[in-house]
Amino acid sequence: MELLDKLNWRYAAKAMNGEKVAEDKIDRIIEAARLAPTSSGLQPFEILVVKNQEIKEKIKPIAWNQSVITDCSHLLVFAAWDTYTPERINYMFDLTNEIRGFKNEGWENYRKMLLDMYPQRDAEENFNHAAKQAYIAFAHAIMAAAYEKVDSTPLEGFDPAAVDEILGLREKGLRSAVLLPLGYRKADEDWLVNLVKVRKSTEDLVTVIE
Amino acid sequence: MELLDKLNWRYAAKAMNGEKVAEDKIDRIIEAARLAPTSSGLQPFEILVVKNQEIKEKIKPIAWNQSVITDCSHLLVFAAWDTYTPERINYMFDLTNEIRGFKNEGWENYRKMLLDMYPQRDAEENFNHAAKQAYIAFAHAIMAAAYEKVDSTPLEGFDPAAVDEILGLREKGLRSAVLLPLGYRKADEDWLVNLVKVRKSTEDLVTVIE
Repeated sequence: MELLDKLNWRYAAKAMNGEKVAEDKIDRIIEAARLAPTSSGLQPFEILVVKNQEIKEKIKPIAWNQSVITDCSHLLVFAAWDTYTPERINYMFDLTNEIRGFKNEGWENYRKMLLDMYPQRDAEENFNHAAKQAYIAFAHAIMAAAYEKVDSTPLEGFDPAAVDEILGLREKGLRSAVLLPLGYRKADEDWLVNLVKVRKSTEDLVTVIE
Repeated sequence: MELLDKLNWRYAAKAMNGEKVAEDKIDRIIEAARLAPTSSGLQPFEILVVKNQEIKEKIKPIAWNQSVITDCSHLLVFAAWDTYTPERINYMFDLTNEIRGFKNEGWENYRKMLLDMYPQRDAEENFNHAAKQAYIAFAHAIMAAAYEKVDSTPLEGFDPAAVDEILGLREKGLRSAVLLPLGYRKADEDWLVNLVKVRKSTEDLVTVIE
């Protein structure tokens, strides 16, 4: 399976060479993230694509000074909704009705159920839920990048509040969840590139219940 | 891009026909999940593959009676660690040293840092962090299933505590995070199959910072 070959080729690049990734590849990686399924279809996140070098330089020190932040081509920031609001929920239900061209009673009842439940919940619980949906899109972007033979570095090691501040996310009701630098590996400076990929064995990871 | 065609083909099947998915396809879907990157490489989750029909019947009523639970071929349960323990962290670092055949000071310092940080944190915070990693693997499985032209239904709508009880997860230090029935769509009974896929526009979802 070609896809598994590409997932084996993939690793978390620790050094990138600054080469730019073609925009059509970036578009396909982002399209994979856009098509990711999310809970109730709400897509409770936004994706920021940082190409600006000055902003990457600002983010680097609050991300353990990792060189991939500045040496990547495009830095994707997955920012999740800080909470669920009636407006946000209604937007997606209205969009669905608009795109599909009809209203449906079951779907409207489901909207009411979410409106009765999500906005009243603790914002932190809502953000955690939204962040998980962002992770689905993030994982889609990682796989699509591998499919395009573009390197990526899944990156949780950063100060989210500082990234929020640099990108002005809180004013938009967003909080940074996870980063994904995209670019090309600089093999001769990357300590990880030649090390064997380590994963738990299938036997350790998977239990089949016959 | 072939991959995007498959992601457009994919949808959350609401009815499945009971047909079995070939084991080699299941193996490749699970392999994609196994290869998923996770924070510090800890893979803080397990995957249960439920083939047993009686257990599927038990899960169905605590998952809104969704027919895909029992009409799927294989029900994947992504169960995250209930917390991070020194044993679990050491297991992955030891496995890394064993597979790579050497110890490295930087890597050992990183181990110490995690040991000083994760086990002391609140278990709920740790579970949330582990669950996010499980979502990366879950998203990999969704994409790999689409690549194999196998239908799947990403499913958060279930009672996690009840699933934990049915599968005896808490005794193993696990908590169910998310479900993924795999199988084949039953198009003539699926209200969703012919509806247009709804996603936010790229303009709404993505902001480019030049």
